[in-house]
Amino acid sequence: MNGIEAALEQRGVEKTGVDLHQFASELYPICRSITGNGTRETLKRIQRLIQLQIHEVKSGADVFDWTIPLEWNVREAYLNRADGTRILDYRDCNLQILNYSVPMRARVQLDELKKHLTTLPNHPNWIPYRTSYYAPEWGFCMKHKQMQDLEDDEYEVVIDTTLEPGFLTYGELYLRGQSTEEILISVHVCHPSLANDNLSGIVVACFLAGLLRGRRLRYSYRFVFVPGTIGAITWLAKNKENAQQIRHGLVLTCVGDANGFHYKKSRRGDAEIDRAAALALRSCGEPYEVLDFSPYGYDERQYCSPGFNLPVGCLMRSVWGTFPEYHTSADNLGFIHPEKLAGTLRLCAAICDVLEGNRTYLNKKPFGEPQLGKRGLYSGAGNEASAEAISARLWVLNYSDGRHSLLDIAERSALPFPAIHDAAELLRERDLLAAVDTN
Amino acid sequence: MNGIEAALEQRGVEKTGVDLHQFASELYPICRSITGNGTRETLKRIQRLIQLQIHEVKSGADVFDWTIPLEWNVREAYLNRADGTRILDYRDCNLQILNYSVPMRARVQLDELKKHLTTLPNHPNWIPYRTSYYAPEWGFCMKHKQMQDLEDDEYEVVIDTTLEPGFLTYGELYLRGQSTEEILISVHVCHPSLANDNLSGIVVACFLAGLLRGRRLRYSYRFVFVPGTIGAITWLAKNKENAQQIRHGLVLTCVGDANGFHYKKSRRGDAEIDRAAALALRSCGEPYEVLDFSPYGYDERQYCSPGFNLPVGCLMRSVWGTFPEYHTSADNLGFIHPEKLAGTLRLCAAICDVLEGNRTYLNKKPFGEPQLGKRGLYSGAGNEASAEAISARLWVLNYSDGRHSLLDIAERSALPFPAIHDAAELLRERDLLAAVDTN
Amino acid sequence: MNGIEAALEQRGVEKTGVDLHQFASELYPICRSITGNGTRETLKRIQRLIQLQIHEVKSGADVFDWTIPLEWNVREAYLNRADGTRILDYRDCNLQILNYSVPMRARVQLDELKKHLTTLPNHPNWIPYRTSYYAPEWGFCMKHKQMQDLEDDEYEVVIDTTLEPGFLTYGELYLRGQSTEEILISVHVCHPSLANDNLSGIVVACFLAGLLRGRRLRYSYRFVFVPGTIGAITWLAKNKENAQQIRHGLVLTCVGDANGFHYKKSRRGDAEIDRAAALALRSCGEPYEVLDFSPYGYDERQYCSPGFNLPVGCLMRSVWGTFPEYHTSADNLGFIHPEKLAGTLRLCAAICDVLEGNRTYLNKKPFGEPQLGKRGLYSGAGNEASAEAISARLWVLNYSDGRHSLLDIAERSALPFPAIHDAAELLRERDLLAAVDTN
Repeated sequence: MNGIEAALEQRGVEKTGVDLHQFASELYPICRSITGNGTRETLKRIQRLIQLQIHEVKSGADVFDWTIPLEWNVREAYLNRADGTRILDYRDCNLQILNYSVPMRARVQLDELKKHLTTLPNHPNWIPYRTSYYAPEWGFCMKHKQMQDLEDDEYEVVIDTTLEPGFLTYGELYLRGQSTEEILISVHVCHPSLANDNLSGIVVACFLAGLLRGRRLRYSYRFVFVPGTIGAITWLAKNKENAQQIRHGLVLTCVGDANGFHYKKSRRGDAEIDRAAALALRSCGEPYEVLDFSPYGYDERQYCSPGFNLPVGCLMRSVWGTFPEYHTSADNLGFIHPEKLAGTLRLCAAICDVLEGNRTYLNKKPFGEPQLGKRGLYSGAGNEASAEAISARLWVLNYSDGRHSLLDIAERSALPFPAIHDAAELLRERDLLAAVDTN
Repeated sequence: MNGIEAALEQRGVEKTGVDLHQFASELYPICRSITGNGTRETLKRIQRLIQLQIHEVKSGADVFDWTIPLEWNVREAYLNRADGTRILDYRDCNLQILNYSVPMRARVQLDELKKHLTTLPNHPNWIPYRTSYYAPEWGFCMKHKQMQDLEDDEYEVVIDTTLEPGFLTYGELYLRGQSTEEILISVHVCHPSLANDNLSGIVVACFLAGLLRGRRLRYSYRFVFVPGTIGAITWLAKNKENAQQIRHGLVLTCVGDANGFHYKKSRRGDAEIDRAAALALRSCGEPYEVLDFSPYGYDERQYCSPGFNLPVGCLMRSVWGTFPEYHTSADNLGFIHPEKLAGTLRLCAAICDVLEGNRTYLNKKPFGEPQLGKRGLYSGAGNEASAEAISARLWVLNYSDGRHSLLDIAERSALPFPAIHDAAELLRERDLLAAVDTN
Repeated sequence: MNGIEAALEQRGVEKTGVDLHQFASELYPICRSITGNGTRETLKRIQRLIQLQIHEVKSGADVFDWTIPLEWNVREAYLNRADGTRILDYRDCNLQILNYSVPMRARVQLDELKKHLTTLPNHPNWIPYRTSYYAPEWGFCMKHKQMQDLEDDEYEVVIDTTLEPGFLTYGELYLRGQSTEEILISVHVCHPSLANDNLSGIVVACFLAGLLRGRRLRYSYRFVFVPGTIGAITWLAKNKENAQQIRHGLVLTCVGDANGFHYKKSRRGDAEIDRAAALALRSCGEPYEVLDFSPYGYDERQYCSPGFNLPVGCLMRSVWGTFPEYHTSADNLGFIHPEKLAGTLRLCAAICDVLEGNRTYLNKKPFGEPQLGKRGLYSGAGNEASAEAISARLWVLNYSDGRHSLLDIAERSALPFPAIHDAAELLRERDLLAAVDTN
């Protein structure tokens, strides 16, 4: 099968893993949020790799039930002791400022300060990540250990942020295939220095786009890089008609850690993407689990809202919220691994290969088996075909009755999709199969 | 959820258990059968609690394939030794007379007598319960130990029963709800001093009617207190049209012993009552098992006969015929427990709550998630909603597409029905949901 | 149930096992192939037992995508050492000649000879069975041990075979039942001295035909004895219209060894034959497994090709290709057992009993249960019916709503089919059931 997974192998899987991690490292220090210059800068760096279109939507604009908020930017944010000693600076670690914190300049006593500090008592050396997008608050996040060491003193709080009319920014890449039917790949771009939760998805999506670019594709592909929730809602609001073209979709998140895969099915539960993902997982060589849809998680919540009900699943390694490093400073560049990022990219490629290659055929010699031997398609007589290849031919011939797709046949036979697809290509060349569907 | 289960809690579950057992104790000594004064008396005592209508159907009347038998009553029944010593009197334990025994006055030798005695060799201190409704026989039941001790003597048999044209008696209570669609609760009232098998169902049904009385109900409720088999067939024959109003139904039997629950599904197998019962059981805190329908058991046999095929299941704790005390004197007041009777009543209330509360809604903001935060329906910002409550809101919003009922959503989400129902009520208040069904 | 299984019991199961093995022993020495006198002779011997029609189809005739090959016969085939010592003669074991070997007379060196020898290194004392029907080759099969002992010598090869225009031969027996709808029993007759793989199926099919002959049958039965693959394709090509009469079918193969049963479902997967086989297996008293259809195996491949998609399953004990003796001289008369052949025949009889007896009825007293007691159909009052018999009556009455067949009821009740069938016969006699289907 001369597919997208093969293109990755040609590029070199190991090398690609290193490149993926390298790109994540480049994006890691940027202070992203649901709006602002960090996200804008992130999208610009992505533009250097793939021809992203960057869209800006004004603060105050209505997107379905929501409103685009004021744009948030940070000039500086720090905490000094009374004697001027700097004890915390957001430039050292951008998780340290409460994301979307309102501006604040004040001198406060320890007791008052503590009301605005978030820590992780169970992980005293980790800094938590916290946001307050829609409730105006100010605050810092720090190591629990550091907070415990704070002396009873007066502290100088400087939070020089701006919350002003501006824009929500998102990126979009459209690759035109033979059909106007689309495959959607969606990742969120609103988390600051968190590696698994957001950077892993971003870099895999970028490289997947790279693998697809320039290929002859059956489907059109749409990659969206959006702030979580509000960004996905914004994209849907701006593309209500377009969204009807989406035939299959994946949200990618937390795809770089050392865990096996978790695929969360679309709300439909039996969509082609759900079956294609399960099929590719079956052959991926890593442990995996397929989960039912539930209405919380990442942006599949929005794509699968009842008004859209799009066939969009969510691919993860560790499941959001279930691993201790989630939304902490421990979700850093050491938490994601080149080979795991590459493994996810390979799985995405294999899923796309299933979707691209899934067709329904009609056996042109349906009465009894056609004689494969006289066509050199059977074993023996010096024919070197593997047992798997011959089995795949028999499966494709037997089930190509116009009602079973190659995906159906792969599921039923327990053979890998590429073997089934290759068999179908060969049988079509030998004029034993006719295509039924036309797109 | 301000439902029927909550009404029970308000009344006091523990106290109710004591009351249930107390009422069972009051009914225990009465000698019931499929006809006669014992059953009539039982129904009259129930009338003191709930406004039962008592119906009488004449001996000889045809009810489908059956005929109402002669009415049976006992004046006295005893066994004396030749010297006049009383060795058995049915007044001591009414199981001792073969139920529906024909009258007999005779002096018989031990050998002859033994042909008319039934005992339990495996439980020599228990008295069995036996009937012969349709084959004219006379006889006694006694402890096996007692039979073994009988000396080779002549015995005086006195069975002063009457089998005369009279009536079959049954009771019925109808509680009018908003809809004429009905929920049926059926219990049998034909067993003499047996506690789990018949009294437990009777008292739970009475108290359930008590909990429902005076409430604003969606469904109408019909409680029937009938002799087993012939009584249910009689009720069906007299209510062939009415029966079409039954949307959900439960037969209650053997619901007071120490075992967990067994729910036997209706013949349909996927009726709403079957799903509601399974859902309530999932949250009841006791062990339980759901059984497939089979055409033997209690009066669900009749309600689920193919000409009716009503959605009527059967709720039990121990399953009839499978516990050693079944149909013996060991099924006495000590075999049923106040807290178990109360637990069954609570489960019945929870099932009714599901049926009453099960509606289908339409999310009025179906494109993306509505912004719960601005409505105070999300966590954070001092909002004290539990994770379960918020999860329930997301589930209800996502699946309220007009095709999923709250029951569907509760099943799918694995959340308790009350949480789903409360979420729906709240979302409806906030104008996020519209009702789809109208009854 | 006065069925086909009962007829076998009347004949004597043990005696029949001996007769089955005896007939296999008679056929064992014959050198069969997909054409030729060995197969012709085999069919003639079968004709002595059952009234087989023998058909001949000319070499060169087109059958769907295939062509009838030249007819193959062996006059002699041996291998001598240079000094004339005979070291291998196909008359000693007909597996020793490559089946369909082209003729050859030559003196060859050991090295050259070895290119034409097949052995089993893992089973050095077994002779393999090999064929080359469509690629012209010559060769011998021998024990690996014998090959290792061959000295570096010149050898005289004599393969006096003929490959000439002739016929493909197959046999067919049609037993006319009340309906023109057919049950197909198909076995292959193309393997030389292999006992489990081909003789076991042949002898069971012959004796099943014997059990059916002269009975009043609901279905017509068609037994086909065909060379594997090409023979089944030939039969289908000659009977394309007839094949539409096939309602149920079984391929029998490898049914004499010591293993439990394997039933491979038809391509449809839920055909009546699949359910009947599973039901009969449930009661057969031997271990068994039901396998999904796959498009390789025996002639079910052809019957289940998509142009036909006939409801034909495959009954085996050990599964072809999975036991070491498969296609070797170890698949001999000691590998098949009288009691196992008889057990398979009994299972086939039980499956036919299900198919013959499976009807759909309508309960004529569908409102409540009919009163069985007054008809002597209930327990008690001297009625000796077993609990199973009474249970079967209740099941049949409850589910005979015109939508559930006796097969459905047997599956659902977990009662043996004969118990359900007997109950239905009895209830029909008592005018409680009316037949719904008419064939």
